[in-house]
Amino acid sequence: MSGTNVRVGIVGVTGYAGMELMRLVQSHPHLKLSYLAASQARSGGASELFLHSRNMADVAVEKFDPARCQALCELVFVALPSGTSGVVSVDLWKRGLRVIDLSGDLRLPADTYRLWYGKEPVADAASAVYGLTEFSREALAQATLVANPGCYATAAILALKPLVHHPRVDSRTVVLDAKSGVTGAGRSAQPHLQFAELANDFYPYRVTTHQHTPEIEQALDASFQVLLTTQLLPVSRGIFVSAYVVSEMVDWREEIYQLYVNFYADAPFVHVLKQGEVPHLKAVQGTNDCHIGIAQDPRTKLLQIFSAIDNLQKGAAGQAIQNANVMCGFAETCGLDSIALWA
Amino acid sequence: MSGTNVRVGIVGVTGYAGMELMRLVQSHPHLKLSYLAASQARSGGASELFLHSRNMADVAVEKFDPARCQALCELVFVALPSGTSGVVSVDLWKRGLRVIDLSGDLRLPADTYRLWYGKEPVADAASAVYGLTEFSREALAQATLVANPGCYATAAILALKPLVHHPRVDSRTVVLDAKSGVTGAGRSAQPHLQFAELANDFYPYRVTTHQHTPEIEQALDASFQVLLTTQLLPVSRGIFVSAYVVSEMVDWREEIYQLYVNFYADAPFVHVLKQGEVPHLKAVQGTNDCHIGIAQDPRTKLLQIFSAIDNLQKGAAGQAIQNANVMCGFAETCGLDSIALWA
Amino acid sequence: MSGTNVRVGIVGVTGYAGMELMRLVQSHPHLKLSYLAASQARSGGASELFLHSRNMADVAVEKFDPARCQALCELVFVALPSGTSGVVSVDLWKRGLRVIDLSGDLRLPADTYRLWYGKEPVADAASAVYGLTEFSREALAQATLVANPGCYATAAILALKPLVHHPRVDSRTVVLDAKSGVTGAGRSAQPHLQFAELANDFYPYRVTTHQHTPEIEQALDASFQVLLTTQLLPVSRGIFVSAYVVSEMVDWREEIYQLYVNFYADAPFVHVLKQGEVPHLKAVQGTNDCHIGIAQDPRTKLLQIFSAIDNLQKGAAGQAIQNANVMCGFAETCGLDSIALWA
Amino acid sequence: MSGTNVRVGIVGVTGYAGMELMRLVQSHPHLKLSYLAASQARSGGASELFLHSRNMADVAVEKFDPARCQALCELVFVALPSGTSGVVSVDLWKRGLRVIDLSGDLRLPADTYRLWYGKEPVADAASAVYGLTEFSREALAQATLVANPGCYATAAILALKPLVHHPRVDSRTVVLDAKSGVTGAGRSAQPHLQFAELANDFYPYRVTTHQHTPEIEQALDASFQVLLTTQLLPVSRGIFVSAYVVSEMVDWREEIYQLYVNFYADAPFVHVLKQGEVPHLKAVQGTNDCHIGIAQDPRTKLLQIFSAIDNLQKGAAGQAIQNANVMCGFAETCGLDSIALWA
Repeated sequence: MSGTNVRVGIVGVTGYAGMELMRLVQSHPHLKLSYLAASQARSGGASELFLHSRNMADVAVEKFDPARCQALCELVFVALPSGTSGVVSVDLWKRGLRVIDLSGDLRLPADTYRLWYGKEPVADAASAVYGLTEFSREALAQATLVANPGCYATAAILALKPLVHHPRVDSRTVVLDAKSGVTGAGRSAQPHLQFAELANDFYPYRVTTHQHTPEIEQALDASFQVLLTTQLLPVSRGIFVSAYVVSEMVDWREEIYQLYVNFYADAPFVHVLKQGEVPHLKAVQGTNDCHIGIAQDPRTKLLQIFSAIDNLQKGAAGQAIQNANVMCGFAETCGLDSIALWA
Repeated sequence: MSGTNVRVGIVGVTGYAGMELMRLVQSHPHLKLSYLAASQARSGGASELFLHSRNMADVAVEKFDPARCQALCELVFVALPSGTSGVVSVDLWKRGLRVIDLSGDLRLPADTYRLWYGKEPVADAASAVYGLTEFSREALAQATLVANPGCYATAAILALKPLVHHPRVDSRTVVLDAKSGVTGAGRSAQPHLQFAELANDFYPYRVTTHQHTPEIEQALDASFQVLLTTQLLPVSRGIFVSAYVVSEMVDWREEIYQLYVNFYADAPFVHVLKQGEVPHLKAVQGTNDCHIGIAQDPRTKLLQIFSAIDNLQKGAAGQAIQNANVMCGFAETCGLDSIALWA
Repeated sequence: MSGTNVRVGIVGVTGYAGMELMRLVQSHPHLKLSYLAASQARSGGASELFLHSRNMADVAVEKFDPARCQALCELVFVALPSGTSGVVSVDLWKRGLRVIDLSGDLRLPADTYRLWYGKEPVADAASAVYGLTEFSREALAQATLVANPGCYATAAILALKPLVHHPRVDSRTVVLDAKSGVTGAGRSAQPHLQFAELANDFYPYRVTTHQHTPEIEQALDASFQVLLTTQLLPVSRGIFVSAYVVSEMVDWREEIYQLYVNFYADAPFVHVLKQGEVPHLKAVQGTNDCHIGIAQDPRTKLLQIFSAIDNLQKGAAGQAIQNANVMCGFAETCGLDSIALWA
Repeated sequence: MSGTNVRVGIVGVTGYAGMELMRLVQSHPHLKLSYLAASQARSGGASELFLHSRNMADVAVEKFDPARCQALCELVFVALPSGTSGVVSVDLWKRGLRVIDLSGDLRLPADTYRLWYGKEPVADAASAVYGLTEFSREALAQATLVANPGCYATAAILALKPLVHHPRVDSRTVVLDAKSGVTGAGRSAQPHLQFAELANDFYPYRVTTHQHTPEIEQALDASFQVLLTTQLLPVSRGIFVSAYVVSEMVDWREEIYQLYVNFYADAPFVHVLKQGEVPHLKAVQGTNDCHIGIAQDPRTKLLQIFSAIDNLQKGAAGQAIQNANVMCGFAETCGLDSIALWA
């Protein structure tokens, strides 16, 4: 690496995660946007192609070419569809680049991947470090191939991780009622994602079969069995997870809250809210923050953990930059200090 | 009653439930809009006051006067804030009118009401019939004072009622993850309900303390202990409840689906969706329908019951009309046959 | 025709106009839904295909077959894409059916059509009656082939028609700043109409080239030259036209307002608002109403005419039903008396 | 001033402009957030009061006290309601502070202010420099009291300024059809701004009487008479102005486009779009950019100038920071380089 000025490429820049990576790299003091690629070349540079990017460096969007990517970059973010993304990532990694893959291709053991994704696993997937930054800093500092976590998985794992192997938590079944903005479904035109179809609506999808389920269980050391229910919100960005956990803990301030506060004391993006506060989707949109709210029902004794992130930042591009920061020895928050618009 | 032409009053017509009642009564073949009242008189008749009602009968919106209400009406809908609504309802009922109260004032035993609403109970509340129509038709046919159910309660009860006392259902704790459009919060100006505050947001409120909790448990014969979590959706109308139930049932077609289909065979507004189908909020907006979807997670064995209603129709005004239909001997669906706009 | 029970077909039922026709025919007391067709057959009947239509008559959605359409229907609505719709309409009309075509194919003289649509004109287009109901009632009563007006055109023509040939209006150039909800762009999946692309946005399209321009000028007896600017609103339904007209009129109550009120005295769907009132998109959504507001700027003397309709009702399906009512001798408002939801 | 570290106060920090100032000052490398005030003190610091600001410097929100403000600040932004804001601004200015007033109080001559605002003018209003940065850089470099322009005014003036006194433009009447997101109406709770009232709606307000009208005409050297029509969009942020100008210009590339490009060659935030491109509200939300699109109708010869800004940035807080940059000798773009989220 060239120290404080790392040449960066983005493969899959015309999708939502790729566009967000472009924004974040452009604003990053130590990353230099050096290569943009998509499955098809586009006429015009990034500032012409993306209407909101009039002030950006004028890097062309090229048809992906691994040799050219290798020549121009030191570190590459790959944000292509599952099945392709991991293959491209491993190829670039073998060419000597540091690679962060934003797809689900490198996150799971082969058998689990085959079962939940219904595809053949990617060779060398096991070489990737699972990059939920808060729990992998040491491995990331040495990593050259990183599997960036899924959006639902990130929100769920951050919500539940402090409870892993806790003696007073019943881990047999955790209900994860999750809601996502529609950018989570990608940028390809699909009939059910048209504005007039989704506006004012709300509904579940992939009931009992969402592929982030095993990713969550794995990251929680298999200490929980989770039921992840994914539902579509009529907003563009954000994931909100409501987790319901059977527990005997009862003293909020002394036990549960303190557990979370201590657990995340060194995590600059994870904010444990005070008693009575709840996460708001709007408070994290456009940021890499995760807000966590905790309550306990006095009647059923269920713990409720609420977790909110921006699916394109902490759930994808933001966390990828956070991982790149750790990999390159930059401050973990470098280039990730934006404040949400709120309104 | 004057048979097929019942004179109807609406007290609290400037709130969302009152406005919806006005729409529905106006379109009803056997109900005649005869009296509109609010806590303050408004200049102009209904068609002038409500921009969307240019073709309506021009009934003035008066300051509420019980004697005048008594003189003009045979049946009255009262949709005032809790604490006031029940008192007004009982007063009008004692004056000889048939009354349907849309507030929470007449739904609970005194002690439970005091505990969850934090107010003194209304005298004679116990005289009211709880009007979740599908389960109270016989009582409603004789009723003169009706407690119209809460919006969350209606969606939750319809979702869970078929499972009451089922031998293969564990009823100790049911998670009800509920989401509501913002009209459920009323029409008074509140800072956090301003468009620019709520647009693009999602968040929980009244965590562990929502007053519909005991109403749900009561209507389910206390066979379940529920944790009701209420969350605000950035849409105007609709309630979506995701219920998680511990169960041993496994054979969808033979057991669970058939149980629901049989249970609601005579309920014209309750639609049990086929396997793989899920309720959509948009499919019920503007209608009195309840859509119910059922799934079972093969891993955790949890039953998932999804239930969607329009909070202003089946959750308030629509169910009130449905109750009025039963009370007056009209067809239960009379005046309630609108089809959702979808887009 | 069979008098009070006309057998009706809808060709193009899976688009937004077709879906709205289905809703309206289903609720109409004298129209019987007898045939539904699309360019492709769909499995399942209408109530299964359309999630919001659980209570509908279960007519199958077939692949369009003109002979079958002829056999089953007396009157047919054709809502296919321009270029196809007019051809299908003329064919069905020659088979003896009464036909209302919702596309732009039958609205313009051949040369004008060729110029603005960039396609070859449809043979026999000139046989169609232009069905802006308020101005064509006599012709419609005899018509067997009707060109249903465009959505922007309907809103603009209703706004300006009372001013045609008025001696104190300068008709050389009228600015029509028009805004539309996204259902106006059709139901096919298009990248720029995805929820996450359009939410929170607003922008013009087809600047200076919108094909409703000549339709408007023709319907206004070529007495105005209009500049129609069409812009996309992040809502599903509704068209709002702000018209700016150079005029010498100054006395609101006596002259302008009275002109409009008198002009539309017999138009049950056109509501001329009082001084100081303005149309709201929400007040007409889900209805066949047109709200018109009038102001005059004391400084520039410009007349401002604001006009709001629902693009799927008065701008398409609603007006088509209104035309069918006149063609069949039913009351003009029959089946079109819904009241907007407002919230 | 203390050179590269200016101590800054915000009076009126709980409104939308104030909140946006807080975000921008917090991210600015040379401005130090030193004092936050509102009409009422709030418990907790900024990071507690504003849910989206968990990482902010923890400055308390105090009840406004001019002496304390004077003691803590070198430069103050005042964003209070009209009538109060100018009085506070002039007072602080007389105490020796540099002041930027975001209200309309210091923008107009006394008589014009009295006429359009219906209030008594603020003494010493004439001492303020009108801070539409692009046209006042020299005056701003020396200014100690600045009147920050209105949101509609900024969008309209930037759209029309290149045409001032142009020999081939007819300046008698320019139609400005303007649309604004709802944050322009302020953050106080108002019934018509509730989510359920505004969602899906669109309508004009203050027809012919909007107080930005004289501000626009004044900034255009009284060379145009404008009719400003303001309309409410169901989005939180953004202003879109469609200007219609009578002109004889016809050669786009050589004349009109080149005129605009040359005019704004030194304006880093103003982007003149290429032929066929149109501004998108989303492309400027969250940025200080102004996008300008130009078209000419070949039939009516009308010039159409489209202009889009973020009402809280270039229309308020962003431009205030831009003005502060010029006043303090910082680069004009300092702290204003964010890229829009797009989705």
